[in-house]
Amino acid sequence: MEAKEVLKQHIAKTASLTDEQFDYFFSCFKQQSYKKGQTIIGEGDRVECEYFVLDGCLKSFYINDDMKMFILQFAMPTWWASDYNALYSGAKATISIDCITNAEVLCLTNADREKLCSELHQVEHFFRWRTNKGYVATQKRLLSLMNNDARHRYEALMEQYPALYNLVPKHLIAAYLGVSRETLSRLYNS
Amino acid sequence: MEAKEVLKQHIAKTASLTDEQFDYFFSCFKQQSYKKGQTIIGEGDRVECEYFVLDGCLKSFYINDDMKMFILQFAMPTWWASDYNALYSGAKATISIDCITNAEVLCLTNADREKLCSELHQVEHFFRWRTNKGYVATQKRLLSLMNNDARHRYEALMEQYPALYNLVPKHLIAAYLGVSRETLSRLYNS
Repeated sequence: MEAKEVLKQHIAKTASLTDEQFDYFFSCFKQQSYKKGQTIIGEGDRVECEYFVLDGCLKSFYINDDMKMFILQFAMPTWWASDYNALYSGAKATISIDCITNAEVLCLTNADREKLCSELHQVEHFFRWRTNKGYVATQKRLLSLMNNDARHRYEALMEQYPALYNLVPKHLIAAYLGVSRETLSRLYNS
Repeated sequence: MEAKEVLKQHIAKTASLTDEQFDYFFSCFKQQSYKKGQTIIGEGDRVECEYFVLDGCLKSFYINDDMKMFILQFAMPTWWASDYNALYSGAKATISIDCITNAEVLCLTNADREKLCSELHQVEHFFRWRTNKGYVATQKRLLSLMNNDARHRYEALMEQYPALYNLVPKHLIAAYLGVSRETLSRLYNS
């Protein structure tokens, strides 16, 4: 399916745009290709865009002072990713994004999203609901992490991203769950 | 300040409504008083409203199978609270909300919020940005928790809610930070 149709079907689940409105909406996106391992957002970067994944898999992550990596999100097709704190506030990136596989994405700048939201009420509606869903998902993950229940976190991840098991190296899944590789092995094998 | 003016000033930071539009917006809210310790949302409830705090302090929390409490949020004046997963999806509440102090709140039903968002573009704009900020704050807290940095979590909480130190019993602050009371004492005294 071509990029335009993928985005159209994604938006249509939440918002009603006429063909003309959607053409205008789509015209604000820029398609980009990245290679496996390539960085999209690096720590300290100015962040101007958010990314809609068409193909492949990204990870957004944070590396602490001890060089330990924490994965905030895997972004697969029709998922959105950015360092939203940096994107919204103008602060420099603290979250990095790179490509687990080769990837095709559509980029939308912060300025263009705000312009579109202001011009088209249905676009604002779409982005409100997209963030509502992200907010609820992040709250659930926070509670699960506070509850320190690795088994539940593992099952929730596999339910959310069934394709992940084969796609993503195990050490990245451990970094998402916040467990050691040994704990992850026990979860896989039980 | 009366309730209407508090909400008006809160909304005006993000959205431009005419006086007439704001009057209509405000007419959809219902003011309610709660006593210290009273439950607003109990586990298993159907959740129909979100709550804008005018006065007092609420906590939203989760209790696990071992009866251990995890605090998701303290809600002080001009903060919003609900079990958003339940509110948006129609599922029963897994998060409870009760009152740390006597509290005055404005309630808005899910149906009225959606109606207002659909009728008034600026209201949709307001709620999009409110959730954007909540999403970013929850992501930051998630990373901080993954990084297991109690000192940083404590400092972030005190920065976010400076009044909390005197207002909230220490065992609730420990339940927010996900640390023992002993660890919290060390953070307070260092």
